[in-house]
Amino acid sequence: MRQTGQHFLQIPGPSPVPGRVLRAISQQVIDHRGPEFAKVGMQALNGVKTIFKTEQNVFIYPSSGTGAWEAALVNTLSPGDRVLMFETGHFATLWKKIAEQLQLKAEFIEGDWRGGADPDLIEAYLAEDKAHEIKAVCVVHNETSTGSVSPIAAIRKAIDNVGHPALFLVDTISGLASLEYNHDEWGVDVTVSGSQKGLMLPPGLSFNAVSEKAMAANKTAGLSRTYWDWADMVGPNKTGYFPYTPNTNLLFGLNEAIDMLHEEGLDNVFARHQRHGKATRAAVRAWGLEVLCSKQGQESGVLTAVLMPEGQSADRFRAKTLEHYNMSLGSGLSKVADRAFRIGHLGDFNDLMLMATLAGVEMGLNKADIPHKAGGVSAAMDVLQGGS
Amino acid sequence: MRQTGQHFLQIPGPSPVPGRVLRAISQQVIDHRGPEFAKVGMQALNGVKTIFKTEQNVFIYPSSGTGAWEAALVNTLSPGDRVLMFETGHFATLWKKIAEQLQLKAEFIEGDWRGGADPDLIEAYLAEDKAHEIKAVCVVHNETSTGSVSPIAAIRKAIDNVGHPALFLVDTISGLASLEYNHDEWGVDVTVSGSQKGLMLPPGLSFNAVSEKAMAANKTAGLSRTYWDWADMVGPNKTGYFPYTPNTNLLFGLNEAIDMLHEEGLDNVFARHQRHGKATRAAVRAWGLEVLCSKQGQESGVLTAVLMPEGQSADRFRAKTLEHYNMSLGSGLSKVADRAFRIGHLGDFNDLMLMATLAGVEMGLNKADIPHKAGGVSAAMDVLQGGS
Amino acid sequence: MRQTGQHFLQIPGPSPVPGRVLRAISQQVIDHRGPEFAKVGMQALNGVKTIFKTEQNVFIYPSSGTGAWEAALVNTLSPGDRVLMFETGHFATLWKKIAEQLQLKAEFIEGDWRGGADPDLIEAYLAEDKAHEIKAVCVVHNETSTGSVSPIAAIRKAIDNVGHPALFLVDTISGLASLEYNHDEWGVDVTVSGSQKGLMLPPGLSFNAVSEKAMAANKTAGLSRTYWDWADMVGPNKTGYFPYTPNTNLLFGLNEAIDMLHEEGLDNVFARHQRHGKATRAAVRAWGLEVLCSKQGQESGVLTAVLMPEGQSADRFRAKTLEHYNMSLGSGLSKVADRAFRIGHLGDFNDLMLMATLAGVEMGLNKADIPHKAGGVSAAMDVLQGGS
Amino acid sequence: MRQTGQHFLQIPGPSPVPGRVLRAISQQVIDHRGPEFAKVGMQALNGVKTIFKTEQNVFIYPSSGTGAWEAALVNTLSPGDRVLMFETGHFATLWKKIAEQLQLKAEFIEGDWRGGADPDLIEAYLAEDKAHEIKAVCVVHNETSTGSVSPIAAIRKAIDNVGHPALFLVDTISGLASLEYNHDEWGVDVTVSGSQKGLMLPPGLSFNAVSEKAMAANKTAGLSRTYWDWADMVGPNKTGYFPYTPNTNLLFGLNEAIDMLHEEGLDNVFARHQRHGKATRAAVRAWGLEVLCSKQGQESGVLTAVLMPEGQSADRFRAKTLEHYNMSLGSGLSKVADRAFRIGHLGDFNDLMLMATLAGVEMGLNKADIPHKAGGVSAAMDVLQGGS
Repeated sequence: MRQTGQHFLQIPGPSPVPGRVLRAISQQVIDHRGPEFAKVGMQALNGVKTIFKTEQNVFIYPSSGTGAWEAALVNTLSPGDRVLMFETGHFATLWKKIAEQLQLKAEFIEGDWRGGADPDLIEAYLAEDKAHEIKAVCVVHNETSTGSVSPIAAIRKAIDNVGHPALFLVDTISGLASLEYNHDEWGVDVTVSGSQKGLMLPPGLSFNAVSEKAMAANKTAGLSRTYWDWADMVGPNKTGYFPYTPNTNLLFGLNEAIDMLHEEGLDNVFARHQRHGKATRAAVRAWGLEVLCSKQGQESGVLTAVLMPEGQSADRFRAKTLEHYNMSLGSGLSKVADRAFRIGHLGDFNDLMLMATLAGVEMGLNKADIPHKAGGVSAAMDVLQGGS
Repeated sequence: MRQTGQHFLQIPGPSPVPGRVLRAISQQVIDHRGPEFAKVGMQALNGVKTIFKTEQNVFIYPSSGTGAWEAALVNTLSPGDRVLMFETGHFATLWKKIAEQLQLKAEFIEGDWRGGADPDLIEAYLAEDKAHEIKAVCVVHNETSTGSVSPIAAIRKAIDNVGHPALFLVDTISGLASLEYNHDEWGVDVTVSGSQKGLMLPPGLSFNAVSEKAMAANKTAGLSRTYWDWADMVGPNKTGYFPYTPNTNLLFGLNEAIDMLHEEGLDNVFARHQRHGKATRAAVRAWGLEVLCSKQGQESGVLTAVLMPEGQSADRFRAKTLEHYNMSLGSGLSKVADRAFRIGHLGDFNDLMLMATLAGVEMGLNKADIPHKAGGVSAAMDVLQGGS
Repeated sequence: MRQTGQHFLQIPGPSPVPGRVLRAISQQVIDHRGPEFAKVGMQALNGVKTIFKTEQNVFIYPSSGTGAWEAALVNTLSPGDRVLMFETGHFATLWKKIAEQLQLKAEFIEGDWRGGADPDLIEAYLAEDKAHEIKAVCVVHNETSTGSVSPIAAIRKAIDNVGHPALFLVDTISGLASLEYNHDEWGVDVTVSGSQKGLMLPPGLSFNAVSEKAMAANKTAGLSRTYWDWADMVGPNKTGYFPYTPNTNLLFGLNEAIDMLHEEGLDNVFARHQRHGKATRAAVRAWGLEVLCSKQGQESGVLTAVLMPEGQSADRFRAKTLEHYNMSLGSGLSKVADRAFRIGHLGDFNDLMLMATLAGVEMGLNKADIPHKAGGVSAAMDVLQGGS
Repeated sequence: MRQTGQHFLQIPGPSPVPGRVLRAISQQVIDHRGPEFAKVGMQALNGVKTIFKTEQNVFIYPSSGTGAWEAALVNTLSPGDRVLMFETGHFATLWKKIAEQLQLKAEFIEGDWRGGADPDLIEAYLAEDKAHEIKAVCVVHNETSTGSVSPIAAIRKAIDNVGHPALFLVDTISGLASLEYNHDEWGVDVTVSGSQKGLMLPPGLSFNAVSEKAMAANKTAGLSRTYWDWADMVGPNKTGYFPYTPNTNLLFGLNEAIDMLHEEGLDNVFARHQRHGKATRAAVRAWGLEVLCSKQGQESGVLTAVLMPEGQSADRFRAKTLEHYNMSLGSGLSKVADRAFRIGHLGDFNDLMLMATLAGVEMGLNKADIPHKAGGVSAAMDVLQGGS
């Protein structure tokens, strides 16, 4: 039977694309070498800078976020370089795997998947590296698999505390435009992001925001690269063009999305996500379930990962919820596969969409006979009404 | 500040238009006299018959529902004709006003706006009319201003009980494709409807389903008409065309909407609306508020009108809800202006959209400091989980 | 086999709807009684005034242009009133038929369908009416069936010359926003128009621009009316609302279309249509065919009707052209059925679209073995290159 | 001043995206790990095979065509490998540059940019390579910079004639779905393509069709790769999924585009492009200009590159044409920069669009005072009418 009404796409990205953006990307494609395109391109290239909060280069790729991970590495590093990474969860692990495939020596500070990267551990690790062999520190800002946020400014400070010259590479694919982020102020060298989360676009665009120091590293980085090479981008980007055919229609959408974010105000965007995270956690706790992120203050405003009661299948619960309530929830990944599910509350979202989402979870828990207490929806409603 | 996320358009029509329909109406217009149009037109003309459940004519107007009210009258009646109408609420009253403007003698059986039309009163009224001067009985099926449903089959029977030859004209503008409706089986002579409710389209199309008896009346009806004249429609309609330029893009949408209704199955559509009505009433009662429709069994599955506590402004409450929760609710109309509000739960709708809606009402009641009990959302959730 | 590429919709309306407008009408419908709608409504109501060039009322109907014809009559006249009309072609004839159905005494100054209405004949006719029994003069500005334009300012002068008090009603359904038009300056009392021609919208909206004098006539006009009644519109329109559910999505499109017209500049719009008419006529003459409009200076910039050589079927030619060249041309209507075809060159149009159109006609003439000379395309190209 | 009417995007890609495809990509994004996606993914993965005419793997990347060039190389080759390439024009040169950046030894058979790759020269070159050090032969099928087509089947035969085991890599980014192409039958090992040409999509998807032999090479290929690695794709693709977030909305469009191609029939698609190429060349010659491709039988049905008369600027001509006729033409690239322009006649195209295009060129030549003869439009029209 046809599912009726709106589908609730409550995975932690892609997030639902607003009508304004869908209409923007459905415009007819234009000549990517013509004068009209230059305006579109300049608007996009300048616009994304306001989102990353940088006055340095931001490069836009027609690719998934995975490509932008690779781009960050191949533009700055050489085969055999040591890089320090932090095991915040599944996506940090994937990034490490990519580094290894690229013949980097990726070293992991192990984590329990229940919090962000720890600045103290990073500082201690770097302090050991007297020879400064470690060429980059790679951290996931918002770990999409766990719903934990790493303290980027504090990690910057940790690196500086020991005077380590490593580049600082941050993945905020799922954090950008949802959580506070300051590429320049926080001294990040390469920020990696994508289109399909806080930017409210379909997947297909990815980004590297790049510091002067990283641009300099590009000159000597020995990893091979062609598609991802920043050096080829700089020239054409100056006038709004790209070295190869860009994804024009997603750029139309990007410009619209950036306008929408500024109409709301970035600080309001951030506060909204925080508030929805808080309400969601209140619901989870009222159900008697456990939020995967166990470090207070590091819970994400983008998504909430929830641990199932012992012995219960998260995937079965998600399938029931999809079938009966027309809502997609995120699955647990690798280490927490089938043991956790994830609630996305990011992008173009509001209080009533959250209430629908949480009602769907509560009714889904019932439908799947998952032991839990009632009252999550009410608890979340209390939080929403307590604030702002 | 920009409202984020999806707007909840919970008025009793226009109902939110599904993406499939919006995309259908955004197709390029075509030649309304060319061969491709004939297919579109035939599909629409045949398709609507399956919705009205008729094998007789259905005429499609480029107009609002108001126009189809006028059409029903001017095609069948003559100046000075007596017509019997029933005061179910605001829209019955408007239809009466139109009848009067057309120089019909419209007679009202008064109602308290808290239920559907009463077959017994109609039967009694007609029994008095030994001379059969009353030429038409006009009833609103789903009274959009009150959320009450008139028992159309029973009214047909009431007319037959006294052997009265009056035409039976029914407005189901807001009932069609949401509530069970059987034009042929119920012996309705003219059914009036519109596009922007259960048919999930933007406003701009209206309909007259017409019995043989009504077609015969058209031949002698003395009211003047040009735009609305059925007689001009019959010929062109046979091959899928219209006597004047149709609203082609809404016909594209109509064909898509009819497909969607049949994919779900009309019986499922009806059951869904009933279930959502029931859950909504449970919420209203849990809040300690009163449902405007007081006749059990006549409460609408399309919308629920709610009476405010004494002395509280419904419009102020609605304004707060719109401002804080990005949800539009329907206003009380004329007799219950500012004293009632209306919750639409029709069209392309589902359980989670209803939960969002009711959470919005509950939070709106708080925001506007309307005295009420908590628990409406939970009560509705209980109903949704009890059934099907 | 699937027709490839763009369909050329070269009928004299509906004209192809620009992508901007299609996207505008594909926005989600909104509450037609809410605050956001008021802005949309006010923009539309004020915007259309700039197109009709009036500071008086313009009423917007959810209907085809046919409805606006009826509206113009029923709002200003009483049963039995004499009205003077001019037989410019098929649409003038249809309007007369409507007048007659409404029990007006419609009198025709006969025409040969090859030019606009003649001011001298109108003046002479009115001069005879010493008793001022004629209550309205009805003229079609751009006769869509023939491609002839009536000199509206001159007809106004003709009426004034004999001091006749009749109302002046003008149909510019297919002229508005393509040909110069000045409702106020030309002293028109009611201007009738529609959405699907120069306004570049799908069909479904129609208009009455109304002088003070016509508004006064509305108070005493005896024809019955409900849907079309201006009196009910005035109040709600003041704040951007409508007395019944408007076609919201077409209003979104209307606002976009008006913006586009002003971005181009109305004078440029008019000049463009004139130029394309001129080029088209050059093509027709180069083919050795005859332009239906035989009055120099009255040929329309909106469309060109072309007479077929004796004994040749215009409809067969059009069918071949549609089949082989994916282009729809307008048919000859009633008196010139199958004897003429019509080339639309209106709305969102440009030089290359015209060249495609004329190439399609020239190749279609060949395909259908219609005797003609080659060279129409070249002749038109010469005209296009001669001017600005 | 606003450009009116349709923009003619007559560059050799991106080609204009049909409305059906634009509407498909404007659907709401879905969960790329959910059951509904699997259907979309399987349809896309199976669908593209019918276009490449292969029963082997086709991998779909969220990237520009440039990325798929890189993918073809990094999946099959090792640093220092010799690869033989043929200088058909600008894009062959770019591909060579990429090969070199990847530390391959790319060897060019020089060409004059006026024809496709020469099988005899390739055969002779390979015959010299007794040691079989050359690991791949890379050829551009449709050279987008020149409008010349390489004889792929003949090149396959040339390779076989000398029993050379090199992989055969073919770029048909701008040829696929416009020119006949048979990945399996022609024994191509990797075919590279993109979305924005014959597939009628916006840019953003690229493809590698891959033979068993190439899949085997992937196992030992020493070039580093992560994003482009086929090995990671095979598993998820089996059930319709992808190893990282795909460009869901373009996949919606891809499925629609493939349907459209099969509705027309691939052979009809190919014949149409051939016919339009022939008509375009007739126009060029009638203008007294020279077609860049000088090898008879190798002229492309996708685009026609035209040499300007000595001393005339192609870019100035293109700018004038854009300004006055709302048409984008392709620029000459590198060796023929400003000396040639390119007319795209690919994708969702038809006779009248071609006539518009050629009229735009002819009028643009006049506007820019480029010495030429009149009559190109007529000559093309003659060709179009001679055939089919």
